[in-house]
Amino acid sequence: MIYVSRKEHFNAAHKLYNPSWSREKNLEVFGPCANENWHGHNFDLIVTVKGTPDPETGFVIDLKKLSNLIKEEVVDQLDHKNLNLDVPFMTDKLASCETLVVEIWKIIDPKIQTISRYGKLHQLRLFETPRNYVDYFGE
Amino acid sequence: MIYVSRKEHFNAAHKLYNPSWSREKNLEVFGPCANENWHGHNFDLIVTVKGTPDPETGFVIDLKKLSNLIKEEVVDQLDHKNLNLDVPFMTDKLASCETLVVEIWKIIDPKIQTISRYGKLHQLRLFETPRNYVDYFGE
Amino acid sequence: MIYVSRKEHFNAAHKLYNPSWSREKNLEVFGPCANENWHGHNFDLIVTVKGTPDPETGFVIDLKKLSNLIKEEVVDQLDHKNLNLDVPFMTDKLASCETLVVEIWKIIDPKIQTISRYGKLHQLRLFETPRNYVDYFGE
Amino acid sequence: MIYVSRKEHFNAAHKLYNPSWSREKNLEVFGPCANENWHGHNFDLIVTVKGTPDPETGFVIDLKKLSNLIKEEVVDQLDHKNLNLDVPFMTDKLASCETLVVEIWKIIDPKIQTISRYGKLHQLRLFETPRNYVDYFGE
Amino acid sequence: MIYVSRKEHFNAAHKLYNPSWSREKNLEVFGPCANENWHGHNFDLIVTVKGTPDPETGFVIDLKKLSNLIKEEVVDQLDHKNLNLDVPFMTDKLASCETLVVEIWKIIDPKIQTISRYGKLHQLRLFETPRNYVDYFGE
Amino acid sequence: MIYVSRKEHFNAAHKLYNPSWSREKNLEVFGPCANENWHGHNFDLIVTVKGTPDPETGFVIDLKKLSNLIKEEVVDQLDHKNLNLDVPFMTDKLASCETLVVEIWKIIDPKIQTISRYGKLHQLRLFETPRNYVDYFGE
Repeated sequence: MIYVSRKEHFNAAHKLYNPSWSREKNLEVFGPCANENWHGHNFDLIVTVKGTPDPETGFVIDLKKLSNLIKEEVVDQLDHKNLNLDVPFMTDKLASCETLVVEIWKIIDPKIQTISRYGKLHQLRLFETPRNYVDYFGE
Repeated sequence: MIYVSRKEHFNAAHKLYNPSWSREKNLEVFGPCANENWHGHNFDLIVTVKGTPDPETGFVIDLKKLSNLIKEEVVDQLDHKNLNLDVPFMTDKLASCETLVVEIWKIIDPKIQTISRYGKLHQLRLFETPRNYVDYFGE
Repeated sequence: MIYVSRKEHFNAAHKLYNPSWSREKNLEVFGPCANENWHGHNFDLIVTVKGTPDPETGFVIDLKKLSNLIKEEVVDQLDHKNLNLDVPFMTDKLASCETLVVEIWKIIDPKIQTISRYGKLHQLRLFETPRNYVDYFGE
Repeated sequence: MIYVSRKEHFNAAHKLYNPSWSREKNLEVFGPCANENWHGHNFDLIVTVKGTPDPETGFVIDLKKLSNLIKEEVVDQLDHKNLNLDVPFMTDKLASCETLVVEIWKIIDPKIQTISRYGKLHQLRLFETPRNYVDYFGE
Repeated sequence: MIYVSRKEHFNAAHKLYNPSWSREKNLEVFGPCANENWHGHNFDLIVTVKGTPDPETGFVIDLKKLSNLIKEEVVDQLDHKNLNLDVPFMTDKLASCETLVVEIWKIIDPKIQTISRYGKLHQLRLFETPRNYVDYFGE
Repeated sequence: MIYVSRKEHFNAAHKLYNPSWSREKNLEVFGPCANENWHGHNFDLIVTVKGTPDPETGFVIDLKKLSNLIKEEVVDQLDHKNLNLDVPFMTDKLASCETLVVEIWKIIDPKIQTISRYGKLHQLRLFETPRNYVDYFGE
């Protein structure tokens, strides 16, 4: 069993805001992350696929195909976008990294089998900044 | 002559948009950087001060004081903000890094002498992403 | 289950020295790490907390609170200190990263519940240099 | 149980090529990675050893000895070499990272016990670029 | 005057070899860099353009256009190639970074004016490894 | 004219302390950097040599020789040492980066000609942390 990882990135705006709360409570709980006019980040996303290598290619998954898959299914939906306003799969959800990484899993997981017979999605790591990141293993 | 540098960071939203143009022309020139609902970055700012060391401290400038100055005068104005909407010194200006670095120079340059007798602002480097950055030397 | 991580740093001096050995044996075993007058490092500490997100905030743990907790309980005890001489919880212990990471766990683990109902300490990663690091999972 | 990691690096040339296929099929499957005259990378290898610390040294494994072991057994075989032509343990194998990391495991795993009574090889991480890497846990 | 920089990367094989010398002298002078069967690197190239910002766009140069120019004129010629064998502009030249950076300058410099009225090529920085790099300013 | 750079590193302890001042004044001016029992850093040193390439080698300077020179003349004097107590050329000097970089220049500058006919020392950059560094150009 080998674990193969690919890193991609996107730049997006967001704010943390619970619409069922007052603005005061949002600012109290989320601090400047709730600032009305948004802020943003250079996000890095690492996608890890596990499996046994294909004996003909030596690959668990073709990293070029994985890179293209991440770009088409995730980066093109998120890059230079507002996570709260522009992203259909984030509508009515809190735009936290914890929420986002689960939604990205739902998108990528069923697609892995379309580009690899040998690999299975194992882990997503999403960096909001070089010092803050989340991991998700699908359950 | 020694050059002393300090790196700080802030996370902000912006878009590139020339209000004298149509939306179509903005999208044509700026591409997704002109997307209506903003995007954002983790910006890194490196401030370089040059001078001869103070013989009593061995310092050109006290880096703790320089760090505090950058935080108070720049980071607190920009972090978790929208560069187009929330920042008085960027009002009615194109929110490009080229514009921003010149405005930051105007703010920091006159303050350096308040924290160092020996140093003079030499260079600002502003990273928008790890792969895109601008430098300004004050002229 | 989501894993949320925060990186903090501190700069400290230490040496590796077993007081029950002669100086010669210490130098033989630990090499220059046993040099009498100390050396030092820029340490990076990554703290990972796991849990299910709070449905109201989308957070497993508030990273601002986690950052403050690490700073108060760990960084303020270690930063600009001598790990062998200045740190009560390291007294009479070998100042290796393996020892230090276990002691940091003991300090942080019981405090996590004071700032999060949903999270539990999962992992500590302590970098001594960019090329040397240790991980601890609490057992 | 503590996990101790050490990073080393080597620079090598390789190409991805299955000799049972035509050149056309190789280029179709592997793209420019199959270019006839090779390309290359700065590889980074992280070796992780797990165990309980030796009570006399505070070490799971002496990182200086681990560094020397990696250099002698792995880096000296691979650095400034061609992975397809110059490396006996890669002969007749696909020069993918998936293949290489398994071969490195076979070399390092039995040697760990020669330098540590307390540690056992736990994980290898091999970076081909800062954005592509593989992990192997020995099974 | 603002200086705007963009980083791109390519992975290539090369060796250092002076064909007017014996193999022994090549190995004596260049060490393992002269190994017959090549080695390789992940090269990073930073291109810096200086100028005054266009008042309509706030740009010295459109970084998307600069990125495309570097990719078409440089990266496509060098990526996944052998610098000694596959690159017309390196034929009969020593494949050192010093040589390469000058040849890249000759290619990019006349093209800058095709994508920017305001910018002029100022500096190239070419990383062979994270620890070895060269700079060239065109003279 | 090409500029060639090499990065090396060393880990050392120091404190900032002016012996002509009281302990109180030292703590007031230098803050925790004056803590009695030292602290430390992973220092990175970048040495830049400029010149025209040797036509026979394509090198301004042989980076392997430059690396060895830095290790013998600088790293071996500083690594795993106390900058205030163990380093002859720092005796009776303030152990600031500004002081250290000038002393390193004095050591390396006359040695460059012993390993290169074509190169001349141009710049030293000394990182105390990833966010604090100094540059010196020899005057």
